Amino acid sequence: MAYKLWYWPTIQGRGEFIRLPLEAAEIPYADCAREQGADALVEEMKRRDETGQGPFAPPFLGIDGTGIAQVANILMFLGERHQLAPSGMADRYWLHQLQLTIADIVAEVHNVHHPLAMMDYYEDQRPEAARAAQQFRDERTPKFLRHFEQAANANVGDCLIGNRWTYADCSLFQLVEGLRYMFPRRMKTLEPDYPALIHLHDCVAELPALAAYLKSDRRLPFNEQGIFRHYPELDGE
Amino acid sequence: MAYKLWYWPTIQGRGEFIRLPLEAAEIPYADCAREQGADALVEEMKRRDETGQGPFAPPFLGIDGTGIAQVANILMFLGERHQLAPSGMADRYWLHQLQLTIADIVAEVHNVHHPLAMMDYYEDQRPEAARAAQQFRDERTPKFLRHFEQAANANVGDCLIGNRWTYADCSLFQLVEGLRYMFPRRMKTLEPDYPALIHLHDCVAELPALAAYLKSDRRLPFNEQGIFRHYPELDGE
Repeated sequence: MAYKLWYWPTIQGRGEFIRLPLEAAEIPYADCAREQGADALVEEMKRRDETGQGPFAPPFLGIDGTGIAQVANILMFLGERHQLAPSGMADRYWLHQLQLTIADIVAEVHNVHHPLAMMDYYEDQRPEAARAAQQFRDERTPKFLRHFEQAANANVGDCLIGNRWTYADCSLFQLVEGLRYMFPRRMKTLEPDYPALIHLHDCVAELPALAAYLKSDRRLPFNEQGIFRHYPELDGE
Repeated sequence: MAYKLWYWPTIQGRGEFIRLPLEAAEIPYADCAREQGADALVEEMKRRDETGQGPFAPPFLGIDGTGIAQVANILMFLGERHQLAPSGMADRYWLHQLQLTIADIVAEVHNVHHPLAMMDYYEDQRPEAARAAQQFRDERTPKFLRHFEQAANANVGDCLIGNRWTYADCSLFQLVEGLRYMFPRRMKTLEPDYPALIHLHDCVAELPALAAYLKSDRRLPFNEQGIFRHYPELDGE
């Protein structure tokens, strides 16, 4: 039975980190809220909430009547079930550790646009976002990218572990794409320092099923309602 | 061989989420930086960094020459190895999902005190922290606590799953403790709405080994360098 992916229908957001490995591995799934609308997602959240074991927030994956939430958790599940992760214990924990560090930078990206109040609009906290963006751009981004560069360099292959892409390779691809959209000028300066990470990104982009997905209309464009947003005033070299 | 826990020596911080289940289950560990100082932690970070598979940040757990980082990842490892988590697949993912949601609120707690620049001092962003605290206190805290209340209610026992405490029970104990320290007035208002969560907290507090730990000098007091901080000006009913 195809997985039921539930996520907001008009943004890449955190849902994209789930879509990418599903697409790259050609695992059948329904992108439910894109088919049925955001109201259906809200209804599904309510229904699951009443069980006491619902998700705190999207995305979540419906599996045979039950469900699983939190991006890194869903990815670990898909990794185990579809061989999108190594089977050795040490490698599994290392990969999950990396994925959780990717989750950390994604949360910091969200904070850049919502420093004061995560539920309020960017437009209501612009001066504060400018200050938040500066430290994120100048200090946090290189610190995280350096970490992922070292991770990419720790393996001789074109991917994080062994010689096959994993769910975390897909997430690093998305992180680079997102940061390029968010901070094109800053990324132009930074990218030459992280050749192994960029090579890993390029290898993921060339996976045939993923390349087809990226060209399809299933791949939503980045926009200013998602996690990675482009406000030129927040970018800088 | 005893685990080597590495974390900042003067705060509970994220390290406390690891200390608690180690203490509650009486698993031998060395709290390395408390024995050797913060400089030793920085040195250990550098040494691991050079392997390409080091931690992005503390805490991390040294295990037989290798290591594992990210709180939820370390807890999953300890849960599997020491039966501090259920063995069934669905329960394992559910518990990890909850733990990642606890990580989310802990990150939001950090943001309250560092809304503009996570590496800068609270004192340099006080007016902004006041605005951040308001939404966190009024909207986010009840939303998260309600979620954990439902999780506690979904099991008939005095814990999250089955009839024995798990690593996530320990984390919910710590979350309640931390929020009480951070927002005593707000928590006084909120707690009556979450009886199952408070009951779970109390059951963890009464675990004999944990009760002994909490009374020992190994339990650091909360303070204004940690994650949960008490600034009276940020509290409110």
